Amino acid sequence: MNSNANDISGYTYGTPAIAVSSATLNDLQRLKTSVGFTEDDERSLLLAGFVLKDDVERIVKHWRANIIAGIPHLAKHSRNLDGSPSPDYLARSNRRFEQWIIDTCTRTYDQDWLNYQQEIALRHTSVKKNQTDNVVSTPYVPYSDIVAFVAVLNETIKPYLAAKGHTESEVSSMHKAWIKSMHIQMALWSKTYMESGEHGKEW
Amino acid sequence: MNSNANDISGYTYGTPAIAVSSATLNDLQRLKTSVGFTEDDERSLLLAGFVLKDDVERIVKHWRANIIAGIPHLAKHSRNLDGSPSPDYLARSNRRFEQWIIDTCTRTYDQDWLNYQQEIALRHTSVKKNQTDNVVSTPYVPYSDIVAFVAVLNETIKPYLAAKGHTESEVSSMHKAWIKSMHIQMALWSKTYMESGEHGKEW
Repeated sequence: MNSNANDISGYTYGTPAIAVSSATLNDLQRLKTSVGFTEDDERSLLLAGFVLKDDVERIVKHWRANIIAGIPHLAKHSRNLDGSPSPDYLARSNRRFEQWIIDTCTRTYDQDWLNYQQEIALRHTSVKKNQTDNVVSTPYVPYSDIVAFVAVLNETIKPYLAAKGHTESEVSSMHKAWIKSMHIQMALWSKTYMESGEHGKEW
Repeated sequence: MNSNANDISGYTYGTPAIAVSSATLNDLQRLKTSVGFTEDDERSLLLAGFVLKDDVERIVKHWRANIIAGIPHLAKHSRNLDGSPSPDYLARSNRRFEQWIIDTCTRTYDQDWLNYQQEIALRHTSVKKNQTDNVVSTPYVPYSDIVAFVAVLNETIKPYLAAKGHTESEVSSMHKAWIKSMHIQMALWSKTYMESGEHGKEW
């Protein structure tokens, strides 16, 4: 965990402010089995957390400035409704984005983690988007764009996993574990969207 | 396209039996942009189709017999409700699974492709599962298990992409293009689930 996590605006992991997820630990075990997520993957993710922890600001900047900023239908979700920049909103959500990388790698996937997965998803749906930062922006991020963009996260994270001189085999194991976690997370987020969206509106 | 595609029971790609998808070509373009899917990826997928076409039976057998069969909550969707095997159902759906690999690589991603994406998704939801083969099996496949298992498809397809002696760079390009297509497809399927599921029941 980032030593400054407590200073991140709106980062409420493990606090009483977070509701209990509708996904259970049994659901999580089912997803782990489906993706083939093992204790080796947990160890590889911990190593990835060690490798990535000093780079998260650079990684999120890469995603935001080099990629998302060039795709209007993605960029607008961190902007004002008229398309003008919302720098404070962007900065706050970037800090949480950075912490999410760390959490993905270093948190125990337990009930608190499930609860925060649901919270993350809710903050992308019309139920809670914009509330955390008290901004006026797009009402929700379509689930389809999240699933699509995870392909980019998965591809672009790899060089950062290789940046501290680990062997090709270690980097590959870290990358595979990261990808498995992404599929578990996409599956969990889909539950929140299906429960929150009114008949697919938030696709 | 597989030369025997017309012989595949229930394979109705491009026929009048298939409804027009609720996802539009504009939606598809948005998803392509989000994943970074380019003409290079189209070319790489065509090459992948050439590489994989004679191996699809072996690949689907690998997925079904070596992996899914060992995971009861996945295996049950191709079985009778009491858990006993349903060999004809399995065989028919395997033929379509094989053709889906070919289609993913070689079809033009146009309106017909979008329509069949919706049909594929519907056949996994309670709207249409079991109808094509007139069987009594589980009422639907949870979307979450599909998203989770795509991680396995993506990982296990790679050796088959490398099996015809292409360079590491070519194999990597084919693999990246395949993965991008999978994210586009997961996003499209999620639309059908969100529209079909009764408030998240089919998660």
